[in-house]
Amino acid sequence: MPGKLADVARQARVSEATVSRVLNGKPGISDATRQAVLTALDVIGYERPTNLRSRKARMVGLVVPELANPIFPAVAEVVAGALAQRGFNAVLCTRTGTMSEAQYVEMLLERQVSGMIFAGGQYAEADAPHDHYTRLKQLRLPVVLVNAAADRIDFPRVSTDDAVAMEQAYAHLTYLGHERIGLIIGPLDHVPSLRKLHAFEQIAARIADAPDGQLVERTRFSIEGGHAAATKLLVRGATAIVCASDPLALGAVRAVRRAGRRVPADVSVVGYDDSVLMACTDPPLTTVRQPIEAIGRAAVEMLVGQVEGSPVADEELFFEPELVARGSTGAAPVAQG
Amino acid sequence: MPGKLADVARQARVSEATVSRVLNGKPGISDATRQAVLTALDVIGYERPTNLRSRKARMVGLVVPELANPIFPAVAEVVAGALAQRGFNAVLCTRTGTMSEAQYVEMLLERQVSGMIFAGGQYAEADAPHDHYTRLKQLRLPVVLVNAAADRIDFPRVSTDDAVAMEQAYAHLTYLGHERIGLIIGPLDHVPSLRKLHAFEQIAARIADAPDGQLVERTRFSIEGGHAAATKLLVRGATAIVCASDPLALGAVRAVRRAGRRVPADVSVVGYDDSVLMACTDPPLTTVRQPIEAIGRAAVEMLVGQVEGSPVADEELFFEPELVARGSTGAAPVAQG
Repeated sequence: MPGKLADVARQARVSEATVSRVLNGKPGISDATRQAVLTALDVIGYERPTNLRSRKARMVGLVVPELANPIFPAVAEVVAGALAQRGFNAVLCTRTGTMSEAQYVEMLLERQVSGMIFAGGQYAEADAPHDHYTRLKQLRLPVVLVNAAADRIDFPRVSTDDAVAMEQAYAHLTYLGHERIGLIIGPLDHVPSLRKLHAFEQIAARIADAPDGQLVERTRFSIEGGHAAATKLLVRGATAIVCASDPLALGAVRAVRRAGRRVPADVSVVGYDDSVLMACTDPPLTTVRQPIEAIGRAAVEMLVGQVEGSPVADEELFFEPELVARGSTGAAPVAQG
Repeated sequence: MPGKLADVARQARVSEATVSRVLNGKPGISDATRQAVLTALDVIGYERPTNLRSRKARMVGLVVPELANPIFPAVAEVVAGALAQRGFNAVLCTRTGTMSEAQYVEMLLERQVSGMIFAGGQYAEADAPHDHYTRLKQLRLPVVLVNAAADRIDFPRVSTDDAVAMEQAYAHLTYLGHERIGLIIGPLDHVPSLRKLHAFEQIAARIADAPDGQLVERTRFSIEGGHAAATKLLVRGATAIVCASDPLALGAVRAVRRAGRRVPADVSVVGYDDSVLMACTDPPLTTVRQPIEAIGRAAVEMLVGQVEGSPVADEELFFEPELVARGSTGAAPVAQG
């Protein structure tokens, strides 16, 4: 194929004769030139001849919805580092832009990855498209999911225990004297949010004798979503608000101030994740920390285990969160009247 | 190779005979089974037989030092999204952990990537090891660097204009009446810091007739580094501090408060990057925004251009930053005495 030879020669900045000598394993070529020719094949996208191939790429897809919420880069950093130590590279897929999760899965399969780790993906949304997970299951590709998945999706999972997180937040706030505690969670079909809601209602029933369905709001995971939802909870008399993410909590703080009130003197706010910089926010955020380091490392161990042929059960491992008390929570305001 | 057949059969959960039929292109195998067998080859790390190979992986290494400073996930998100739109996947390499940049470069070459994009790497440190860049140059691998590089390293670069950033910060502070303006930058050999220092000294000489070398501190890029450096500048009478990153600025805010003074009533602080959440810090941070979206997209265009064979000059493209004024800067305090 003369076109191919010419392409490679141009990319490697050598003659076509040299390319030909390298591809046919002829002597008289310096190692530097040989490497440059092989690299040119890689760049253009041609396969290397079988006898010149290095060992097979060992790559793992890492699929996250976005990197703007700092919890996702934190997960990505732990996972990519742990994979590298095991000799794998992480192929980063963020759903920002025009690519869907299913399209990324197709790309990753084309790249012949050894497995995929999903964090915060469509598996967590009961009503989202799940066909690509079914496909991965049929292909027997090693997959690990981070945090709760919809019922039908059966892969090994590593999760922060949402129920414990709610118990910690609720206990902290009742200790501070709060009785009207609101909850802001994600969309209706978001499984980790449903788990938090379930735990929250159980605790409320146990402590307050009557769960207050009026004090729950669902919204999109963003500062703006938290702001909108908190505004509604304030109108209904909440003196404390537990949020299902740190950005939601930052939005709730904003809403309290927009309503002319103070955090924490008038209203306490608790976040979820303890992502980076939460000690630098105004006020420093009290939040439930996900054990990201432990979760990320466990996800990699479970994935590499599958790749190396040791069976890993399709079960969910739960990791304990911890409440980090900072400046956004305080004693409940003294009731008026 | 019976061992190989058995491995693949176990991974794909089919018989060895089925694996053999797939590998030899025999009929009578369902498409789902065929796909599962090919996937099992990928997982275990065996090459697919030539006739069953899908098109060559098109991957680009994305090397960043860490993801804790939110500017790096922001770059990674833009780059990964833009690459995906052009049909490439980003292989994420963060230097956190035990892997060196040179080791990541080796891994990426083994993976036969089509190119590499570096952001905030060792190219920016004049005294760091640079042999792996020399190697990439010899291999003619397409490479793009984000922000200033050491003199000897010659690849296409896309940079925020450090001099313009310093002019914007300095002009903002002198307009507010500040005369004792300090600067916190990175280590001695960090090229973007040196550029900022050079611009800062030129502006100071022009405006104040005498550059004040006493008001410059070098430190590690972290909140703690900013805290330590700012403490020294406060002792020397700085009423405003310009920092070479947002985490440095958050550390400077901390130092001002630890010294019993207020931001911005007593001391103004300016950051650099405008990474995510800087509007939620205490106080909201005045900072110079790097045009990350434009820079990330340009880096991908320049890389894909090289991969597709159009020559891209080893030159540096400069992008203009913009100062975002928030709550950490205010009028200079009235001089005492």
